[in-house]
Amino acid sequence: MTTPLLGLDWGSTRLRAYRFDEAGGVADTRALPWGSRQLPAGGFEEAFARAVEGWPRAPVLACGMVGSRGGWREAPYLDTPCRLDALGGALTAIDAPDGRTVHIVPGLRDPAGPDVMRGEETQVAGVLARMPALAGDARLLMPGTHSKWVRVRDGAVAGFTTLMTGELFALLRGHSILGAGLPDGGTDDQAFARGVVAAQTAGAAGALSRLFSARALMLEGALARTSVADFLSGLLIGDELRMALAAGWAMPDAPVLLVGEDALCARYLQAAPAFGLSLQPTAGATAASGLWQVAVSAGLVHGLSHA
Amino acid sequence: MTTPLLGLDWGSTRLRAYRFDEAGGVADTRALPWGSRQLPAGGFEEAFARAVEGWPRAPVLACGMVGSRGGWREAPYLDTPCRLDALGGALTAIDAPDGRTVHIVPGLRDPAGPDVMRGEETQVAGVLARMPALAGDARLLMPGTHSKWVRVRDGAVAGFTTLMTGELFALLRGHSILGAGLPDGGTDDQAFARGVVAAQTAGAAGALSRLFSARALMLEGALARTSVADFLSGLLIGDELRMALAAGWAMPDAPVLLVGEDALCARYLQAAPAFGLSLQPTAGATAASGLWQVAVSAGLVHGLSHA
Repeated sequence: MTTPLLGLDWGSTRLRAYRFDEAGGVADTRALPWGSRQLPAGGFEEAFARAVEGWPRAPVLACGMVGSRGGWREAPYLDTPCRLDALGGALTAIDAPDGRTVHIVPGLRDPAGPDVMRGEETQVAGVLARMPALAGDARLLMPGTHSKWVRVRDGAVAGFTTLMTGELFALLRGHSILGAGLPDGGTDDQAFARGVVAAQTAGAAGALSRLFSARALMLEGALARTSVADFLSGLLIGDELRMALAAGWAMPDAPVLLVGEDALCARYLQAAPAFGLSLQPTAGATAASGLWQVAVSAGLVHGLSHA
Repeated sequence: MTTPLLGLDWGSTRLRAYRFDEAGGVADTRALPWGSRQLPAGGFEEAFARAVEGWPRAPVLACGMVGSRGGWREAPYLDTPCRLDALGGALTAIDAPDGRTVHIVPGLRDPAGPDVMRGEETQVAGVLARMPALAGDARLLMPGTHSKWVRVRDGAVAGFTTLMTGELFALLRGHSILGAGLPDGGTDDQAFARGVVAAQTAGAAGALSRLFSARALMLEGALARTSVADFLSGLLIGDELRMALAAGWAMPDAPVLLVGEDALCARYLQAAPAFGLSLQPTAGATAASGLWQVAVSAGLVHGLSHA
């Protein structure tokens, strides 16, 4: 069996390496703890060497923060609107010490924000390769530390926005008067639902206007210390949905493709009905699919796209 | 000259002690670094002894976090609507080791939030003692770590809300991808104004939807590293004004009394016009005025209120 491509999904806190088979399927996966902000001695070169150790020599394609200013090499952004099949034509090449060439997918920039993404553009390409019927008109939500809401039209990323829900949650949970010293949460669906309701009833003022209620409720014993984190999660995810609706990234009648980690997606699915929003889960390794897809459009591999 | 009252404005991070003259004026002030969360060895007793050291024996009245659950003694909240002249009838007494009695002003609780305050109720009493014509109908904003928006009707606090603007700013400034490692800010009024405009143009979506633009602007060189903190300050203060309007705590045609530290108030005054809001600065030691006022209504001192 030959290996036509190696792929790297390389973010700020972790690295996933993929060895592809000839049909564009993933033959082997490695997860390494070396993101662009936490590297082994030897830096990017060493992390890369370990990630592909023992794998055949083949073109290498990487996406994510590895191409940021603080990454291995800065890969310039492409501005939106940007056709997804244009990503492959704008790769940045690095000569690795072992003689391999590593190609980096460009990030995207939405001048209207301005806003930027690195890595998610490849996931979008991966999702739409699997659902080509949606490439003409789709909305995607990729929740996380920095949630991305993406609008796709005519095979192009028309625009996107970043909502910092995950980072805000971590800050409030770990460092604020509301959450510092309290348990982690993640298990109390009822407290999460209360947070969602609080966000929804806050109306146009938004859920930040209800943040302090978490403290008042805890002080008077109406919210258990063990439930505060889940309540805050509901508030913030609810507020993200409200903002996305208010800014036009989501609309009540247009389903939004949900792309991300299962446990987090489950919470967004739980919150969506309160805001009249329809989220449609997607499955599979979207970054790997996207890397294959970009490699095809770049001519790094000569194959049909993996459906 | 006799001393009819000693007052303590005792928050979570600092303590201010006042010695009053017979007319209710402040004869002497001491600022000490001992808030309820950072006390000297010997705790509240020791901090108190040092705060009033050498001052005449007189009734002592304290307000603020000293009366919280983690304080010297928990002083139960009064629910809104609550008449300001009812505060004096609900004091909690502590016997200090030196034989003095320290009386603590109750905090307020708004069941509609729920929301709570400690110390600000005394400031409201102080402001309205100086402007009695407004006690029938007033709106107040006390900006800070936890900004309070207060509605006064018929001599009572009708309700209030807390917006955590200052704490959010500190978290984003110190710990987030947007601000960590960047300079302090506080001097670039133009960057602050840009943040206010960004908040204002975000419309109903709110300024959190524009948070990440601070990073994108910095990455592309359109916002200097030294200006990011001021931009974030403008975004968050702008969002606070938007929320207060959306939730009905402020209205375009109703002036809001602004009570707080000069530099911070200046920023709110700078931001207000973009939201069609009229803020009216107030001056003077409002906590001291309020302590005197509450002492009068409690019968701790027998004097006319200090106008």
